[in-house]
Amino acid sequence: IAATLEGMLQVIEADFLRWEDFDKAARVASHSELGVIELMPVADARTYAFKYVNGHPSNHRLGLPTVNAFGALAEVHTGVPLLLSELTLTTALRTAAVSVLAARVLARPGSRRMALIGNGAQSEFQALAFHHLLGITELSLYDIDARATARLVRHLEGSGLQVRTCGSVAQAVRDADIVTTVTADKSQATVLLPHHIAPGMHLNAVGGDCPGKTELHPEVVRQASTFVEYEPQTRIEGELQQMPADYRVTELWP
Amino acid sequence: IAATLEGMLQVIEADFLRWEDFDKAARVASHSELGVIELMPVADARTYAFKYVNGHPSNHRLGLPTVNAFGALAEVHTGVPLLLSELTLTTALRTAAVSVLAARVLARPGSRRMALIGNGAQSEFQALAFHHLLGITELSLYDIDARATARLVRHLEGSGLQVRTCGSVAQAVRDADIVTTVTADKSQATVLLPHHIAPGMHLNAVGGDCPGKTELHPEVVRQASTFVEYEPQTRIEGELQQMPADYRVTELWP
Repeated sequence: IAATLEGMLQVIEADFLRWEDFDKAARVASHSELGVIELMPVADARTYAFKYVNGHPSNHRLGLPTVNAFGALAEVHTGVPLLLSELTLTTALRTAAVSVLAARVLARPGSRRMALIGNGAQSEFQALAFHHLLGITELSLYDIDARATARLVRHLEGSGLQVRTCGSVAQAVRDADIVTTVTADKSQATVLLPHHIAPGMHLNAVGGDCPGKTELHPEVVRQASTFVEYEPQTRIEGELQQMPADYRVTELWP
Repeated sequence: IAATLEGMLQVIEADFLRWEDFDKAARVASHSELGVIELMPVADARTYAFKYVNGHPSNHRLGLPTVNAFGALAEVHTGVPLLLSELTLTTALRTAAVSVLAARVLARPGSRRMALIGNGAQSEFQALAFHHLLGITELSLYDIDARATARLVRHLEGSGLQVRTCGSVAQAVRDADIVTTVTADKSQATVLLPHHIAPGMHLNAVGGDCPGKTELHPEVVRQASTFVEYEPQTRIEGELQQMPADYRVTELWP
């Protein structure tokens, strides 16, 4: 998995370096009571692609994955579809790879300790990516559902990570170089509070992937320097929903 | 094909009768020099669907279809995809069926003669649908490409339609009850001019499916009563691009 993640990270980085070549758009979301279904189109001069992806936190009660994804690739000059692919696993890997990519340029050099808040399916990919690609060796886990944490601990056995289960967010984030939040609750949550944060901490806030869904207390965002991938999208979903329109953010790849 | 078209028409009509149940959005278009690739999502409380469709008029030079389509159906309450389907043929049938549905309520009762301007792939479906479902018996054809017309004539042999090839738009539309325009040229064209139009004619303007692409002289639109399927979409693509924002249209299904 380390080689796969590193390969993806390099492809993503190469694409960021030609960021202006892409015809980008905010994703097209169809919201319902239990979740969201989204289409994410993107194109450059040669290739068009889109992804279908859903997010339904309640699916685990039915024994179904929270996220299902697939997508297609097509030729821009003919519109002919070239490839149709399952993308659920790719989505998980890509999210983890881009998190590491951001941390490589933003986190404290020599970061070794990461807190992982939210221990569902995506958290395992985050743990492995930060371990193999960034050198994280110590992991502190917290989830409101202790069974999720126990499952993640089992999955990480033999990974080489030193894993510690915590009883609270405060305990998990203590002395962390990086805090990754990857929670599923579809509401305005405040997983991280101002007193959790220490200077120089890198916050990898992954879970705010719906309108109305946030993970950070607004004061945490206000005191941070905020870097995003694509600002028009990030104003619709993610932590910036809590901020006024003139709150300044930096696109990671100018 | 008559039974298939009639079945589709009934399903479409039933959906129009619960028009307000749908979460509708203007399609998401990615334009390039030679064509467009679009995603069309729609959902009701139970089911989500989207279609991928391209439109590349120059594809015929490469021996490829102008339009390729596929799509998926998913459960709204879990986001799980249920069905993935090729939809190119469905797109052609659906366009023809909805054209007849509109003509049934808008065209002169007892309509027998139709002019068909633009004789590419979609025109055959229009001809058969209007013949089998509306009672059109006489068809006048015109295309700037005489080979397209000749091919359509061959395809309609044995259909029961009385087919006449014309040398001009003016000749084709003379005494027509219905004029169907289904041209592919991706530009602001004026296929129908004011002097082509007689009182009571029903214009089935199908081809304006891109920003910048129209088929009717603005004066023709101005003098007509205009009915559309979904106004927000129709303001972006189709004949209304030529009209001011306050030009009044009626959604076919209120």
